[in-house]
Amino acid sequence: MIPAHGGGWQVPSPWLGLSEIKAEAEAIEKELLEDYRFGRQQLIEIWGHACAVAVTKAFPLPSLPRKQPTVLVVCGPAQNGAIGLVCARHLRSFDYEPTIFYPKRSPDPLYRDFTTQCEKMDIPFLSYLPTEVQLINDAYNAVVDAVLGAEAEVGEGREPCAAILATLKHIRIPIVSLDVPSGWDAESGGSGGISPDVLVSLAAPKECARRFLGRRHFVAGRFLPYDVQKKFELNPPEYPGTECVVAL
Amino acid sequence: MIPAHGGGWQVPSPWLGLSEIKAEAEAIEKELLEDYRFGRQQLIEIWGHACAVAVTKAFPLPSLPRKQPTVLVVCGPAQNGAIGLVCARHLRSFDYEPTIFYPKRSPDPLYRDFTTQCEKMDIPFLSYLPTEVQLINDAYNAVVDAVLGAEAEVGEGREPCAAILATLKHIRIPIVSLDVPSGWDAESGGSGGISPDVLVSLAAPKECARRFLGRRHFVAGRFLPYDVQKKFELNPPEYPGTECVVAL
Repeated sequence: MIPAHGGGWQVPSPWLGLSEIKAEAEAIEKELLEDYRFGRQQLIEIWGHACAVAVTKAFPLPSLPRKQPTVLVVCGPAQNGAIGLVCARHLRSFDYEPTIFYPKRSPDPLYRDFTTQCEKMDIPFLSYLPTEVQLINDAYNAVVDAVLGAEAEVGEGREPCAAILATLKHIRIPIVSLDVPSGWDAESGGSGGISPDVLVSLAAPKECARRFLGRRHFVAGRFLPYDVQKKFELNPPEYPGTECVVAL
Repeated sequence: MIPAHGGGWQVPSPWLGLSEIKAEAEAIEKELLEDYRFGRQQLIEIWGHACAVAVTKAFPLPSLPRKQPTVLVVCGPAQNGAIGLVCARHLRSFDYEPTIFYPKRSPDPLYRDFTTQCEKMDIPFLSYLPTEVQLINDAYNAVVDAVLGAEAEVGEGREPCAAILATLKHIRIPIVSLDVPSGWDAESGGSGGISPDVLVSLAAPKECARRFLGRRHFVAGRFLPYDVQKKFELNPPEYPGTECVVAL
């Protein structure tokens, strides 16, 4: 049962319900962490790797318009940002040239370690994001938005997130959003916000993904235990071979 | 520079040197953990996932001789065993039917968590390994040897490892060994020991892999930072696309 939705692309049904999006996403993560004893380090590694694979599928190396396979990864202070750091690290090993902008670093030792891995691998970190969007358009093939994700209301209105969103809203290179496009309202989606070209849903698509009108929508949830998929009625798509992401 | 070796297959040169195998493998891991701040959970997850992918390449689902895609994963008490647990979990998500034999469980909370993940995913655990090898030959398509690995001398002569090795020596279904085939002498290789059909080298091939005469030899080291590869002269093979393992 895969109903078609407004955007013209197909998604598994049912999705996470409207008002309980955050609650349900949190319940899935709680179950993975507490009952299944997954580690946060392990989940962030799995999701970050899957996001990097999704980026390679959306923007294969030979298809990139710029000579250098540059990608800008913008990381927020919380878990979504840590997933962005892992994504950047794997992009590096897939022969892309990621650059990270991570203005508000978390003191969490786990996130610090993910940061160190990138720094030691000589992935450049920007000290500020150019407000002149043309500089970004010219320098990178794509931007990975790992700013807010499902933690939206935590930091959306605050700096430096507000300034980043204002910049991302005006760039013309494609944006890859992780889980929930930064600044999107969880229910009404992205009116007035950024318009990602690619969305990577972690575990399962969130309700706001119905409003996603971009080119590719991937889900990264292959590792989810069968019982979790059943309990939360995730109706996962079929992943070919050993793929960790699948395009809907 | 990829010289041919006795076994008829090609390996990158240079390998980890003869006498310093263990020291060098430990030095690489130490560098990853201490300098790069990788976590043990993270490394075991990455390696276990890569091992599962290697199993699917060596034994694709449609090629399996038995009706059920069964694989027996035998896990030792130390890190190699934990990698086996992660391998089993990913095999499950790749639609195989892994069964685990893990007779000597580590009290390390990290390994306990990897065990819980498998238990909660309903992967069966054997309470004993049949001494009648025909029972194993009939029930499984392959055996993953995650018993000792590079920690060889720690437990080789002790029970239950000695009994497991005696059994594995006589089975006729193919064996996939992780990193160093269990019971192999690090220098002289496998004389009188088990004869794996498939070897998955973690990070880089160890010296004893020169004596490996099986069908497929994979290396799982794509995630290694470039500077680590250079420092330890790992001369990594080229990984296609986003593959985490490559056949030598």
